[in-house]
Amino acid sequence: MLENIDIAAKFDKAEYKRLMPQLEIRLSELQRQLIDFDLPVIVVFEGWAAAGRGVLLNKLISALDPRGFSVYSTYHCQLGEQYPYMYRFWSNIPAKGRIAFFDRSWYNRFVVNPGEDNSERNKYFEQVNSFERQLAADNYIIIKIFLHISEDEQKKRLKGMGKLRAARWRVTEGDWDQNDKYDKRFAEIQTMIRKTDSYYAPWTIVPAHDKKYAAVQIYRTLIDVLENKIESCRRDKSCFVGVKQAELTPLPPSVLNSIDLTKDTKEEEYRHELKLLQKRLRQIQYAVYSQQIPLIIVYEGWDAAGKGSNIKRLTQNLDPRGYEVIPIGPPNEVERKHHYLWRFWKSMPYAGKIAIFDRSWYGRVLVERVEGFCHETDWKRAYQEINEMEEQITDYGGIIVKFWLHIDKQEQLQRFRERQQIPYKQWKITEEDWRNREKWDYYRQAADEMLFRTSTNYAPWHIVEGNSKLYARLKTINTVIKAVEDRL
Amino acid sequence: MLENIDIAAKFDKAEYKRLMPQLEIRLSELQRQLIDFDLPVIVVFEGWAAAGRGVLLNKLISALDPRGFSVYSTYHCQLGEQYPYMYRFWSNIPAKGRIAFFDRSWYNRFVVNPGEDNSERNKYFEQVNSFERQLAADNYIIIKIFLHISEDEQKKRLKGMGKLRAARWRVTEGDWDQNDKYDKRFAEIQTMIRKTDSYYAPWTIVPAHDKKYAAVQIYRTLIDVLENKIESCRRDKSCFVGVKQAELTPLPPSVLNSIDLTKDTKEEEYRHELKLLQKRLRQIQYAVYSQQIPLIIVYEGWDAAGKGSNIKRLTQNLDPRGYEVIPIGPPNEVERKHHYLWRFWKSMPYAGKIAIFDRSWYGRVLVERVEGFCHETDWKRAYQEINEMEEQITDYGGIIVKFWLHIDKQEQLQRFRERQQIPYKQWKITEEDWRNREKWDYYRQAADEMLFRTSTNYAPWHIVEGNSKLYARLKTINTVIKAVEDRL
Repeated sequence: MLENIDIAAKFDKAEYKRLMPQLEIRLSELQRQLIDFDLPVIVVFEGWAAAGRGVLLNKLISALDPRGFSVYSTYHCQLGEQYPYMYRFWSNIPAKGRIAFFDRSWYNRFVVNPGEDNSERNKYFEQVNSFERQLAADNYIIIKIFLHISEDEQKKRLKGMGKLRAARWRVTEGDWDQNDKYDKRFAEIQTMIRKTDSYYAPWTIVPAHDKKYAAVQIYRTLIDVLENKIESCRRDKSCFVGVKQAELTPLPPSVLNSIDLTKDTKEEEYRHELKLLQKRLRQIQYAVYSQQIPLIIVYEGWDAAGKGSNIKRLTQNLDPRGYEVIPIGPPNEVERKHHYLWRFWKSMPYAGKIAIFDRSWYGRVLVERVEGFCHETDWKRAYQEINEMEEQITDYGGIIVKFWLHIDKQEQLQRFRERQQIPYKQWKITEEDWRNREKWDYYRQAADEMLFRTSTNYAPWHIVEGNSKLYARLKTINTVIKAVEDRL
Repeated sequence: MLENIDIAAKFDKAEYKRLMPQLEIRLSELQRQLIDFDLPVIVVFEGWAAAGRGVLLNKLISALDPRGFSVYSTYHCQLGEQYPYMYRFWSNIPAKGRIAFFDRSWYNRFVVNPGEDNSERNKYFEQVNSFERQLAADNYIIIKIFLHISEDEQKKRLKGMGKLRAARWRVTEGDWDQNDKYDKRFAEIQTMIRKTDSYYAPWTIVPAHDKKYAAVQIYRTLIDVLENKIESCRRDKSCFVGVKQAELTPLPPSVLNSIDLTKDTKEEEYRHELKLLQKRLRQIQYAVYSQQIPLIIVYEGWDAAGKGSNIKRLTQNLDPRGYEVIPIGPPNEVERKHHYLWRFWKSMPYAGKIAIFDRSWYGRVLVERVEGFCHETDWKRAYQEINEMEEQITDYGGIIVKFWLHIDKQEQLQRFRERQQIPYKQWKITEEDWRNREKWDYYRQAADEMLFRTSTNYAPWHIVEGNSKLYARLKTINTVIKAVEDRL
């Protein structure tokens, strides 16, 4: 796409002075309409070094109400390196009705240093495309700008900046390196644009020799995209872009119906084993710390399956500085304003830390599906979205261990009754638990489908026979130990 | 306090086995009651190196519902160094109904390296005491545990840990250094405890030679404190601890009534000056970046005083990567669950960055006072709280520039009418603006008191004559430039 651009296009000064105020007013009107329609917008500012990103971005935001946008700069991200690459961008996606400007972005890594390894590159494009597709499917508007200048123009600007004290610090060795290898980088950026150009997140190449021309182009692009989207929302409240998803394969017979729940462990054996395993787990904690591995343990399962007491045994001998139990309840006001995976991305552990999720992102395909808190298309799409997220985490080096704590309906009834009878356990049983129990078959179906569609080689499910709590506790700790040992 | 402790106290094993389950159940009951009464709790875990913080903390949290607490460890805080010291703790204060455990805490800095400079130390104690007093005044429960072991016991443990592969990594040079200088550190910790022991945030010294004894002590301390607090809340819904505040001095005559609002700037002069000032401001931005100074600019003032357009001129020529405009509206659901200063602490800029607050923490003594959104004691207390926060930021090296954009009632009326008449400005004027206008005199009184009580030598207010927007814009930019130049 880059080669067909009139890179030196100019804009008439008088015409600019006449037009710009109109564009500014129009864009600020559209910004207010975004709030009315609860539409989140992501604007990516990429381009050659010295293409004028700073000036043009400032020109753009000067028209906007600062209550409605944020600017994220991908320079300041030391913290980011302790997390999977996309973590820092997921953390900063805008809430509904807001605009996030990314000065440099998830493309920065490629533009600065695309690397030579093709499979690495493809992995990277996959991650980027998955990110954008997931957001677009949740009705995020994604606008990607690439500011284009020629090799000569870039050299001239870098030299000019080098002469000014207040600008010099912004010219890095990497910038000069880009200029030295302009032709090579040109081809690489072409590839990047081709690989990441989509109907839901298209690239706009903006010739940036002339600041006025570029500014007008950028304003027009934003105005165009927003007008179209808002227009289609006005016609039809469910103005989703309709991102195409993979077809779901047919389901095999239920796994859960065939689980042997008679497995048991004797009290004495349990005590003995538990001590040993907890000791070993403490060493495992040290190992993941020293090797800087993020370890993610997910607990799902029936109400009263024993998640809480299981987690207690898992953490009993751990150093509390190195693990965190993250209980997942209904999303709060702020979380509801974001993509449903946002809060999970944000609570992913940094390298070397253990995060134990008591319920998780699988709520999307369990409770949200059964209770109708999201559309059918949403939870059907979620299998792929979740698989992609988990793949990114394990690609980064993370270990994910997922447990489905399984009990049968009779066992649950017994435990519910026990909870009602023991005073200090009564708070654990609510009306909602009884209502969920009535929907047992729907939940079973949802769990079965989840286990089938999201058991991957990089993040497999472990079904834990939970009628015997003692057996279940030993099995989960054992499984975590094995998962880490396999990696070491 | 340390010298009177029976450091080697032991607890009988059989009695421990009988008692501990009761304590655990009791504590978990109290945790649920915290939610009913919306009470936030902070538990500080300090002590000698190798005193057993990790094990004891884990023992304590194992009784609790993980949905209701978080553990913060003060080891992992690289990011923290780009902020004033208390920033990292303010960021992590619990929401109402939740418990935050700090494994090491704001006392860590002193316990590890108290330094030799007495005025530094006193500054430090002031910061810590201010933090705890502000939280206690907002009904935070603060429990501070110090785990005490003898020099010999510490040496024995450090040696023992050095022999175990999985524990060795936790023994640092600093730990051994502490043991070498045990007597000196002992005296210093005595000082620390004396200087920071208060009726609203008292220290509890726990002899920690015997883990069982220590565990029982810690459980009992928490249970005691929580039972008392909950009991007093049950008797009286407004169960505030009643932290003593400084008396307010009498007010002088109104400053605002004596402002000369006829000051004006000619259009031509304005254009010329603005260009020069914006250019200079860009250099200033570079200076604060390269010197790693956080620069905080606060805008307060009447509705329609021109804050928005003033900020636009201030930022017009800045690099968007180095500044952020932070518009302050009513707090959201999550923010309302925290101390009112929490959201402002969290949005303070890191070293080298510029934050421009469009309205600010001064809402506490302006809109919240006038509209009755907080109690009289709350806003009266706020003057001191705000002064303390600003002092901590400037002590860290930050620069704070505060503007009150002033117009008269007639000018406001004219601008309101203009907004109603120009189509693309109509959104700027709401019913609320007209209602606020009716309370002009109350707001004037509140603003006058604010200007008097929070104008400090480290963070002075600048009243900006705003009837002429052009004059006001030049004055604010000039003031910012001068504030930074004075520092350089």
